[in-house]
Amino acid sequence: MYLKKHISSVQNPLIKKALLLRDKSRERKKTGQFILEGKRELEIALKANYTINTVLYCDTLVDILEIKKKLQLKETVSLISVSIEVYQKIAYRDSTEGIVAIAKVKEHDIANLKTVNKNPLILVAEAPEKPGNIGALLRTADAANLDAVVIANPKTDLYNPNIIRSSVGCVFSRNIVTASTSEIIGYLKNNNIAIYCAALSASKDYTDVNFKKSSAIVVGTESTGLSDEWLSNSNQNIIIPMEGAIDSMNVSVSASILIFEAKRQRKSI
Amino acid sequence: MYLKKHISSVQNPLIKKALLLRDKSRERKKTGQFILEGKRELEIALKANYTINTVLYCDTLVDILEIKKKLQLKETVSLISVSIEVYQKIAYRDSTEGIVAIAKVKEHDIANLKTVNKNPLILVAEAPEKPGNIGALLRTADAANLDAVVIANPKTDLYNPNIIRSSVGCVFSRNIVTASTSEIIGYLKNNNIAIYCAALSASKDYTDVNFKKSSAIVVGTESTGLSDEWLSNSNQNIIIPMEGAIDSMNVSVSASILIFEAKRQRKSI
Repeated sequence: MYLKKHISSVQNPLIKKALLLRDKSRERKKTGQFILEGKRELEIALKANYTINTVLYCDTLVDILEIKKKLQLKETVSLISVSIEVYQKIAYRDSTEGIVAIAKVKEHDIANLKTVNKNPLILVAEAPEKPGNIGALLRTADAANLDAVVIANPKTDLYNPNIIRSSVGCVFSRNIVTASTSEIIGYLKNNNIAIYCAALSASKDYTDVNFKKSSAIVVGTESTGLSDEWLSNSNQNIIIPMEGAIDSMNVSVSASILIFEAKRQRKSI
Repeated sequence: MYLKKHISSVQNPLIKKALLLRDKSRERKKTGQFILEGKRELEIALKANYTINTVLYCDTLVDILEIKKKLQLKETVSLISVSIEVYQKIAYRDSTEGIVAIAKVKEHDIANLKTVNKNPLILVAEAPEKPGNIGALLRTADAANLDAVVIANPKTDLYNPNIIRSSVGCVFSRNIVTASTSEIIGYLKNNNIAIYCAALSASKDYTDVNFKKSSAIVVGTESTGLSDEWLSNSNQNIIIPMEGAIDSMNVSVSASILIFEAKRQRKSI
């Protein structure tokens, strides 16, 4: 006989835990777990070798046996059905896909960062504030197949639901590390990776810079730019010349323009 | 004697009107007016020759006489002070700058579109859905000093508060028109402007396309891409090669990569 586990109360301890994992960075850090939502996100996380502990699903929204088969979910994954009310309580996206998972976080330690390419291309973002910007940066990093994305002095953990959502899962598929600015500068120097800081002063037009060698493109926040520590360790400051009334672009947009110029140059390596 | 007009009730008809202008596209269309918020936005709108009818300000947040002088507000602009409660009711941004204005919309008719450059570079976005994406596109258009931004089959009017906010005022400073896809294709063909559609099929790597002649870069939505009408009128479909797990970038990001590649090529015209 198949005994289906079912939760219909939002007071259930597991549901309470899922809510804490969704809403509290502290809880994610304490437990080493996080929640993700959506079929595609689950698929990408599995491909990236994330450990899934529990899948919560809503029968009226999703065919769990089909998903179990398609994603080859292991028997160790606990499958628990929840009522639509419970599902709506724990879900954080507009589209209701009917599936949420509790997974184990990975380490993102710069000490373990290994790059595959001989001349790696790395994106560094210092203290990005908006999860949506981090998500967009990760999507670009994925499209450009960057060797790594490095978040310097992060203001939030990577498993913030808004980062997962806005990265459409790229937060799982990419090589991402977080560290302090000093640690990252040390790493880049030790590995002979040139530091190109996006900055307004002493800057060269980005199209006149040679990105073919090992390069790190470093971007700061829209409001305050990069810290002095980055600027004083820059091999060359770079700038996207702006010709308009406003003199600023979205940080994920300008990072992408810089990254894809580097990619363009590298086509002919 | 200086008689200051003051409103302290959210039931005041002018406040009710401001709320309708903020929240209802229909009201903006009916009255030909819209509201904008913030000093910088007001400054950009004035520079772009928008007609400001009324300025609502909150004494505790802003020095209106200083602003009046700095922006050279005409005597015809009606200055009305509002209580902090009223201000918080009509404001739509997180930062409370203490100033909101009621202004007259402009026409954005493609029939009146004049481009200055001999070989114009134009961005066309078909039916963009999210105001945030439209805002980011307009910021990029401003930075790149595009000849025009054309919104095909718009799903919202340009004076949606979220577009104004996310464009940081570029919605005022730029040459923007809206029209149906058929009208725009007619315009581009009549003016010998090549149509480059961002698409997945029959597409050439965007870095291998020559954007030095008159060019329109045309982007669709992230979910459905461009309509057949665009694709069948395309001079050349273009693609940003993607090498990752996800195969999609934010539409404002990919449009920006395409635009700045065109700009790079045009540096040597």
